[in-house]
Amino acid sequence: MPVNRTVRLKQRPSGPITSDIFDFRDEPMTEPGEGEFRVRTEYVSLDPAMRGWMSEGKSYVKPVALGDVMRAFAAGRVEASRHPDYKEGDAVVGLFGAQTHAISDGKGVTRADLSIAHLPTWLGGLGMPGLTAYFGLLEVAQPKSGETVVVSAASGAVGQVVGQLARLQGCRTVGIAGGPEKCNFITSEIGYDAAVDYKGGQLAEDLKAACPDGIDVDFENVGGDIFDTVLGQMNPFGRVAVCGLMSIYGASELPPGPKNIRMVLVMRLRVQGLIVFDFAERYREALADLGRWHQEGRLKFREDVREGGIDAFADTLALLYTGGNFGKLVLEL
Amino acid sequence: MPVNRTVRLKQRPSGPITSDIFDFRDEPMTEPGEGEFRVRTEYVSLDPAMRGWMSEGKSYVKPVALGDVMRAFAAGRVEASRHPDYKEGDAVVGLFGAQTHAISDGKGVTRADLSIAHLPTWLGGLGMPGLTAYFGLLEVAQPKSGETVVVSAASGAVGQVVGQLARLQGCRTVGIAGGPEKCNFITSEIGYDAAVDYKGGQLAEDLKAACPDGIDVDFENVGGDIFDTVLGQMNPFGRVAVCGLMSIYGASELPPGPKNIRMVLVMRLRVQGLIVFDFAERYREALADLGRWHQEGRLKFREDVREGGIDAFADTLALLYTGGNFGKLVLEL
Repeated sequence: MPVNRTVRLKQRPSGPITSDIFDFRDEPMTEPGEGEFRVRTEYVSLDPAMRGWMSEGKSYVKPVALGDVMRAFAAGRVEASRHPDYKEGDAVVGLFGAQTHAISDGKGVTRADLSIAHLPTWLGGLGMPGLTAYFGLLEVAQPKSGETVVVSAASGAVGQVVGQLARLQGCRTVGIAGGPEKCNFITSEIGYDAAVDYKGGQLAEDLKAACPDGIDVDFENVGGDIFDTVLGQMNPFGRVAVCGLMSIYGASELPPGPKNIRMVLVMRLRVQGLIVFDFAERYREALADLGRWHQEGRLKFREDVREGGIDAFADTLALLYTGGNFGKLVLEL
Repeated sequence: MPVNRTVRLKQRPSGPITSDIFDFRDEPMTEPGEGEFRVRTEYVSLDPAMRGWMSEGKSYVKPVALGDVMRAFAAGRVEASRHPDYKEGDAVVGLFGAQTHAISDGKGVTRADLSIAHLPTWLGGLGMPGLTAYFGLLEVAQPKSGETVVVSAASGAVGQVVGQLARLQGCRTVGIAGGPEKCNFITSEIGYDAAVDYKGGQLAEDLKAACPDGIDVDFENVGGDIFDTVLGQMNPFGRVAVCGLMSIYGASELPPGPKNIRMVLVMRLRVQGLIVFDFAERYREALADLGRWHQEGRLKFREDVREGGIDAFADTLALLYTGGNFGKLVLEL
């Protein structure tokens, strides 16, 4: 009998992500009802935001309920359809959850044009991370030509796109990443003007050397000491797009905030939070831009595709919070 | 022989403000040159920003040099003039410094219309604090009718004006102040809808009770725990105007920043620093509004005028950082 293997949230994480916070189950396959289709998932996206989705507390979406299938973006093919707009074989992307098969009514689903990029890219540079980079940089941070833009987690799913978009805007781009391999990647392959290795032990000095004219825009993916150090080097009227706070996601208690908060006042910074879902009405427009630039060779995307099937969900997710991935992290089913 | 008594900066403060960081001197009176006039100072303004002006480190203006007359706004009368636009007896306000007499070429000087308000008000509600409230609230925070606006240091020079302006915008206004006397003042005399006493020992609970629908705008004058507590109760798309960080001005080392920095991300807050000097081109327009509203009885100002002459400068200034003043603090000469 065909089964749908699911990853359900069993308990909320309090420390590192481990597989015992999830239930892995074989469940009966469901047939699509009228106006629905069934997707066979080929790739599940692992995103830093998942940590927040599993946690209680005030946030921008409700947490995943205990017992529910873990919320996740995924890409796959339609394998059965009673929906007028979708037919068998269509490549689709959506919030299908961490499971091998999903029923959808098409809401929030986008089509993946495989002539532009392969499926994993539609979860990365042409998916939520790419859209996050697009709106976060262009709408929230609003860099001007000639400005210095610093991006933390610069080799990550969002960071690699931000750097390239900032370069297309005529900015000097400086990426912060962990270790020589990632630093080399962002300068030699992604086109960052300079890389700073936060594991090098002298972040403030290295950042200053890479940003001799100070920092005009910070695209913040990490928080903690990295954010604090960047804040300390911001120029007057600088902008900070707060896109992620990776460094605090695993903390059971909130760590102290940035000491350099006074820079917000004296430099008249604008620090603004960014959740890509707020821009949903403009996804189509953004994807057209991103897809075109990718086809023109002006935007490259690096994915980190892991094998192991759906049962490797927890172990793969854990990589995100230890810097163990290299590029957009995706699990192949 | 007539003398000019000056307050010169002798050393940079590292802890509380004490009089030994200044030199008090009798100096020869200077005559105005062509295009200049001399002011006899009647009131010297004490402002929280002075702490920053005396300290080294990246800021929005150069620190006062050691040996220089302490930077200060002051109000007085022209007593000798070789300037075509100013004549003896004119009431003027400017950055005349902490001294009994000042020479000016008229740059940055505004006239005090005593038919609208007496001189001390032109250092308060119709001076820099009023302008700071005006631009900080209306331009930076941009409250909408019906929103909840929280103001820290609500009985202070800036805070009392912010509350009244927010009320004129149709907002619910909640002021944070220290002690029952100040709390009573802001609700019964200034028109705040509610007051929260930060000395009451349960700030978060009291704030929540005063803001049952959450907080849309924070006009931040204090920083530290107060700021952190307000941040934790912000609504989606809330705005924070960072106008002052009184709580950290006296610190020799930077204290930890706000733990609730994650609220910036999940609530998509816009946190923006504010220095009134950036709006210099629009002072005239703002003062026309503020003066009109004051004449119409819609804006009240409370000053805390202290006696003791210029030699009381340091002791009077110190009051600001301990909450010892009540309203706009001014020293009468």
